[in-house]
Amino acid sequence: MGKVLLDMAVSLDGYIDGPDGADVGLYDWYAGTSGPNADLAAEVVDSTGAVVIGRGVFGRGDDATGWDETPYEVPHFVVTHRPPRAASAGPVDFRFVEGVREAVAAAREAAGDRYATIGGGADLARQALDLGLVDEVQLHLVPVIVGAGTLLFAPGSAGWRLSPVRVVDTPEVTHLRYRVEGPRVAAEG
Amino acid sequence: MGKVLLDMAVSLDGYIDGPDGADVGLYDWYAGTSGPNADLAAEVVDSTGAVVIGRGVFGRGDDATGWDETPYEVPHFVVTHRPPRAASAGPVDFRFVEGVREAVAAAREAAGDRYATIGGGADLARQALDLGLVDEVQLHLVPVIVGAGTLLFAPGSAGWRLSPVRVVDTPEVTHLRYRVEGPRVAAEG
Repeated sequence: MGKVLLDMAVSLDGYIDGPDGADVGLYDWYAGTSGPNADLAAEVVDSTGAVVIGRGVFGRGDDATGWDETPYEVPHFVVTHRPPRAASAGPVDFRFVEGVREAVAAAREAAGDRYATIGGGADLARQALDLGLVDEVQLHLVPVIVGAGTLLFAPGSAGWRLSPVRVVDTPEVTHLRYRVEGPRVAAEG
Repeated sequence: MGKVLLDMAVSLDGYIDGPDGADVGLYDWYAGTSGPNADLAAEVVDSTGAVVIGRGVFGRGDDATGWDETPYEVPHFVVTHRPPRAASAGPVDFRFVEGVREAVAAAREAAGDRYATIGGGADLARQALDLGLVDEVQLHLVPVIVGAGTLLFAPGSAGWRLSPVRVVDTPEVTHLRYRVEGPRVAAEG
């Protein structure tokens, strides 16, 4: 069975969006069609066998329908205790699962040898990490300080040790990949 | 006149220390005597012509005396409106300056062609950034999630655009160097 990858773009000050949830261009690098950023984006897509997202990413409220375009032609597991009335009729295969553990387990099962990739939001990322479900973390670190927004790693996260696996360095974004090694030992100081 | 470098070690979740200010090993990489981390530490020391620190880094209270060992054999400017009774009698040249602008200006003057290097704490780093005094930022990104402590980039920072200058990637820490390009344009989204 495949591994679980947390894959998110984040500002230098740790935000996944800007003030009031504004789009601050953290995924601009993703739009390119050639070069190292496009290669890396393609690698993530190709290595992903299932996507896991929070309900807020799918869309808030009973009338949210998700979206009908995605580079990820794999099942999208949405963690929610309140499925929407209907998902998009488009080609995206949305599946609604109650509980983070359950959604990640279902995604791993569906992903086969590929990754179950957690794409956010921050609440889901943090819960999955704190439940010990995440094998690898990939941060696309965008060289901007936004000053406000949603922190990827909100205060209160459990402590974790990681080890760097790879860095891909481009002018637009620095792609940092880590393996999660285990809980952080309590204060060394 | 030289440039101003903000140079700090930070956890993956953006902290410069751990819960209750605990030492969580963010400068462990600095202790080595050979290899890329030692080379990089030496480079920072060699390229630094003056150090700027906040009062809390020097030590809190009237009786703090700073320290008497440092690899930085250059003037140390301490930003404070309340100088301590006495600084260490040791070889470190502590100078007390009221005001961030004034301390950074004095450090640049003293640094000559080398960098005036801001070594923290977070309040000073953030004030210097927000005053537009910082030319380059170097983050020593340690692969650990600590979950609590002092955030380097506390919410409320002004927005800034940066551009990556260099990455030095080691198993212990990823050294990310940026140039500050200017204020961030308001929400693009």
